Amino acid sequence: MPEINKYVLHNWEGLLYNGNLSEYLKARGQIVNHALETLLPPEQGPHKNLAAAMRYSVFAGGKRLRPVLVLASAEVAFGSADNDSVKAALNTACAFECIHTYSLIHDDLPALDDDDLRRGKPTCHKEYGEATAILAGDALLTLAFSLIAETKDVSPDKLLCIVAELSKKSGIGGMIGGQLVDIESEGCEITFPVLEHIHIHKTGALIVAAIRSGAIIGGASAETLAVLTTYGEALGLAFQITDDILDLICTDEELGKPSGSDLKFQKATYPALLGLSESKKVAADVTQKAIAALDVFGVEAAPLRDLATFVIERRN
Amino acid sequence: MPEINKYVLHNWEGLLYNGNLSEYLKARGQIVNHALETLLPPEQGPHKNLAAAMRYSVFAGGKRLRPVLVLASAEVAFGSADNDSVKAALNTACAFECIHTYSLIHDDLPALDDDDLRRGKPTCHKEYGEATAILAGDALLTLAFSLIAETKDVSPDKLLCIVAELSKKSGIGGMIGGQLVDIESEGCEITFPVLEHIHIHKTGALIVAAIRSGAIIGGASAETLAVLTTYGEALGLAFQITDDILDLICTDEELGKPSGSDLKFQKATYPALLGLSESKKVAADVTQKAIAALDVFGVEAAPLRDLATFVIERRN
Repeated sequence: MPEINKYVLHNWEGLLYNGNLSEYLKARGQIVNHALETLLPPEQGPHKNLAAAMRYSVFAGGKRLRPVLVLASAEVAFGSADNDSVKAALNTACAFECIHTYSLIHDDLPALDDDDLRRGKPTCHKEYGEATAILAGDALLTLAFSLIAETKDVSPDKLLCIVAELSKKSGIGGMIGGQLVDIESEGCEITFPVLEHIHIHKTGALIVAAIRSGAIIGGASAETLAVLTTYGEALGLAFQITDDILDLICTDEELGKPSGSDLKFQKATYPALLGLSESKKVAADVTQKAIAALDVFGVEAAPLRDLATFVIERRN
Repeated sequence: MPEINKYVLHNWEGLLYNGNLSEYLKARGQIVNHALETLLPPEQGPHKNLAAAMRYSVFAGGKRLRPVLVLASAEVAFGSADNDSVKAALNTACAFECIHTYSLIHDDLPALDDDDLRRGKPTCHKEYGEATAILAGDALLTLAFSLIAETKDVSPDKLLCIVAELSKKSGIGGMIGGQLVDIESEGCEITFPVLEHIHIHKTGALIVAAIRSGAIIGGASAETLAVLTTYGEALGLAFQITDDILDLICTDEELGKPSGSDLKFQKATYPALLGLSESKKVAADVTQKAIAALDVFGVEAAPLRDLATFVIERRN
């Protein structure tokens, strides 16, 4: 596994939170991007097309929300930002981006959502063909577990907890299960509990796992872990409701893909079931619940508080 | 995670090797099948179709070679068969079958090998549709890491080594990478080194990982691990050369899928490059190499010795 610590040691200073979330996201995003650059397989040798497809999708843009949540949650558990424990969370942060990206590649396939555009660029199968896209997704999913297993400076029992956390929340009982119910519900009349099930599993589970994994690396107590889980569950729901709303109100350019596709494919969404204004109200309520959960923490949780607001105020 | 130990404690006795490999394979296969039955998600709740697709492919037949290799290798490392260390290897054994099955499901997809039959039954996507088949593969791949992470009675550092072993050997540097080169080579004139690369990675890597993982659970020394790795590499190559040969000489019924498909799709194979009789000779030589590597062991390695012979003498 390539060594990323040297870079991090040079660039981690000055990243303490000063209340400017967009600066914070940019700085953390750059660290995550550099780490991914180092950790993803190089575009050379017999598998260069596969490595290229993996890199194409990972570096197609994206907010790096899940990796940033891993790091921010590790900070809260540890009680401060500038420490080795947080640096050690970087491999795990990258693992979550690999899982997120693989899920997008497979979701976009013709047999699933059949999307041609993602983040304003052709989807992986449009650029590299379907076979390579399927394998690139498989390889990113597999790589995520390599990244966690080969992390230095974190104890094996913590890393094994994270493997359990990630595999459970991204598997049939989490993200993949949510994706299946979402697909099976297309064009069907569905009830609110089914919609909630889809949102909690398809999007929420991985966000919760990212937050819990950061907390585990930071050495969180059972109480801290429980509080951060409550925060994560609320944040994940707010995130997906906002996605539903954005699909309805944003332009194609803002979204980086055709807007209104949920309506077109009769996807189950909050606005479809509750209407737009009620959906916005629910998103705001859930966000307040997320922020309130953090009341037990001090200034070390400021990034997580502001991230919750960011999640419902974003435009893509 | 469901509890499998109770069953194993009742049924593990009397499984010491008596020199009859087909009895041994049958008995070990039954234990593995029962464990898989318990460990795979139940066909109920919102994800029942996905669970059904996973179970359909896992229980479509198959020799359970990789799980049996995990168990047999753990025995060798431990020096005896009837012990808790070997029983503890059962979760990991099942993880390897999950990875093997996911790779078959994705390989069979229309965008890859486009196979309609596998083990004499419709392939997963033919039975459950392409979207569910893609997700069933993803879910089995993900489940494999849950099974390892949630194993009891094995230390976290051993389990983490196995996560690293499995993710590396089944990822871009192993199985998935081999599959990519195989697909990219279809219809091309390829050299012998490229063919060897495909075989070592596409099939060999996972077999090596199974053997090494069993050895790690059994507490193998570095020397034992090196010997078993040599055995595994030779066995994996013998296995794939034999697969190439069987595709050419067996009937559709024996194979459970159309024979001669390698020729039809101009797949890179040993017989295509070396001819049939030279390929048989290479398979026999490599098998002897595998068996010779085991000379440092005593009777505890008898199953591995006989498995090597079985691998080149099988008819499917």
